[in-house]
Amino acid sequence: MASAAATKQSKDVPYHLVYWPGLPGRGEHIRLALEEAGASYTDTAHTEGCIADVLAFIQGSQPSDDINTPLCAPPILRHGDLILNQTPNILLYLGAQLNLVPDADQYPGGQYRVNGLALTALDGLSNEVHDCHHPISVGLYYEDQKVEGLRRTEDYVKTRLPKFLGYFERVLESKVSGDGPWLYAGQLTYADLVLFQCVDGVKFMFPKAVAKLQREGKFPRVFALHAAVKERPRIKAYLESPRRQQYSNGIYRYYEELDLEG
Amino acid sequence: MASAAATKQSKDVPYHLVYWPGLPGRGEHIRLALEEAGASYTDTAHTEGCIADVLAFIQGSQPSDDINTPLCAPPILRHGDLILNQTPNILLYLGAQLNLVPDADQYPGGQYRVNGLALTALDGLSNEVHDCHHPISVGLYYEDQKVEGLRRTEDYVKTRLPKFLGYFERVLESKVSGDGPWLYAGQLTYADLVLFQCVDGVKFMFPKAVAKLQREGKFPRVFALHAAVKERPRIKAYLESPRRQQYSNGIYRYYEELDLEG
Repeated sequence: MASAAATKQSKDVPYHLVYWPGLPGRGEHIRLALEEAGASYTDTAHTEGCIADVLAFIQGSQPSDDINTPLCAPPILRHGDLILNQTPNILLYLGAQLNLVPDADQYPGGQYRVNGLALTALDGLSNEVHDCHHPISVGLYYEDQKVEGLRRTEDYVKTRLPKFLGYFERVLESKVSGDGPWLYAGQLTYADLVLFQCVDGVKFMFPKAVAKLQREGKFPRVFALHAAVKERPRIKAYLESPRRQQYSNGIYRYYEELDLEG
Repeated sequence: MASAAATKQSKDVPYHLVYWPGLPGRGEHIRLALEEAGASYTDTAHTEGCIADVLAFIQGSQPSDDINTPLCAPPILRHGDLILNQTPNILLYLGAQLNLVPDADQYPGGQYRVNGLALTALDGLSNEVHDCHHPISVGLYYEDQKVEGLRRTEDYVKTRLPKFLGYFERVLESKVSGDGPWLYAGQLTYADLVLFQCVDGVKFMFPKAVAKLQREGKFPRVFALHAAVKERPRIKAYLESPRRQQYSNGIYRYYEELDLEG
């Protein structure tokens, strides 16, 4: 992607992720791309005073230069002079920088197909899951929207979860997925990493529903992709390291009353 | 953006939009980009039997080739051999094709900044608005989630709407917005068109809240951008034409009980 090269960032410049500590969150998609590529990066989640770093962007004192736009929310990636936010946007940039999209000459338009797959996974298996415990307001506690949360979760587990897993199963069955466990062009792209993290989070939040789907033999290719990403040598080492945050009060949370079978 | 050129689509090939009839919806963002650029395009919303065209993609009988991935939901854009979905993904492609992003040599990384702005507008001023009338399930009627809808809307109008309008006001105040009414680099990009449509929809759905904000002089640059897009010659002609769909039962709906002042 020549446009990424046009940002004049050297691949030797380390990446810097600005994100909340103590949960995987949307920042996790950025970490997985950097880890799979073996990229050199720092992560505010592991530095003291990191909440102030995040707030500086949200409240507008950062970025303080004349080339980057104000940013609304983390995750935020700094690479040299370039500062970006929005998870799928950062992934689009990293996909080109870290060769996590297919070669553009061999697969014309491939970066758009990968972007489309990542956007759909984030919509259906991350944003919609967050709304299961926060259907009314992100500004209220879960405890203040439990009734609505249960109602939304009942629908999510019954209709939305199988819809999106079914969509990705269909992609994996299609000819464009190619040989092997990946979504597109027979090679690992950042869309596979995004789907891995989404499925991983869903397994944590809805273990009963996922166990039932697996017992019934549903979506075998999606679960095989999850297992295949987990065994990538760099990802495996990362998941076992303290750099991997534990699930807590982020997107994917375990509440017994929301652990429905579907 | 060399990657767009690499799709080997000629700019002379007309674009084809696959979208539901009878509402602006997310397809409207695609239409506005095509209209502003004066591009040649067809739109299923104005063809007989278009619902079958949309369903063919959702149900998987389209795309029937070996190069495009299965697609989850409209809007869908076909350009020559390339078939894409996901609104921000289609806009990313069109931005490069139709010169609705700044020159990459002059503004390195500009396409990522524009993509980030568009994603944030779609998140905060379109997706979150849709959830005001559908907080529990897209599969249920509004009438079956009215109580929850009112509760969500109270929060949206009071906290989320000013948050996102405030964010874009901050972008427009920043140096990177440049001279004139636009978000980035002193020139119209597709992010301006996205923000226009979002503000336009919000004005339709929440006229009391928007009137109050305007009375109080809040977010003047955001409302000036809306007015400036509306006066672009091609957009003005489009908005007055039958190609522009009226608001109905889509993202932006008028329900008296949700028309709160905030």
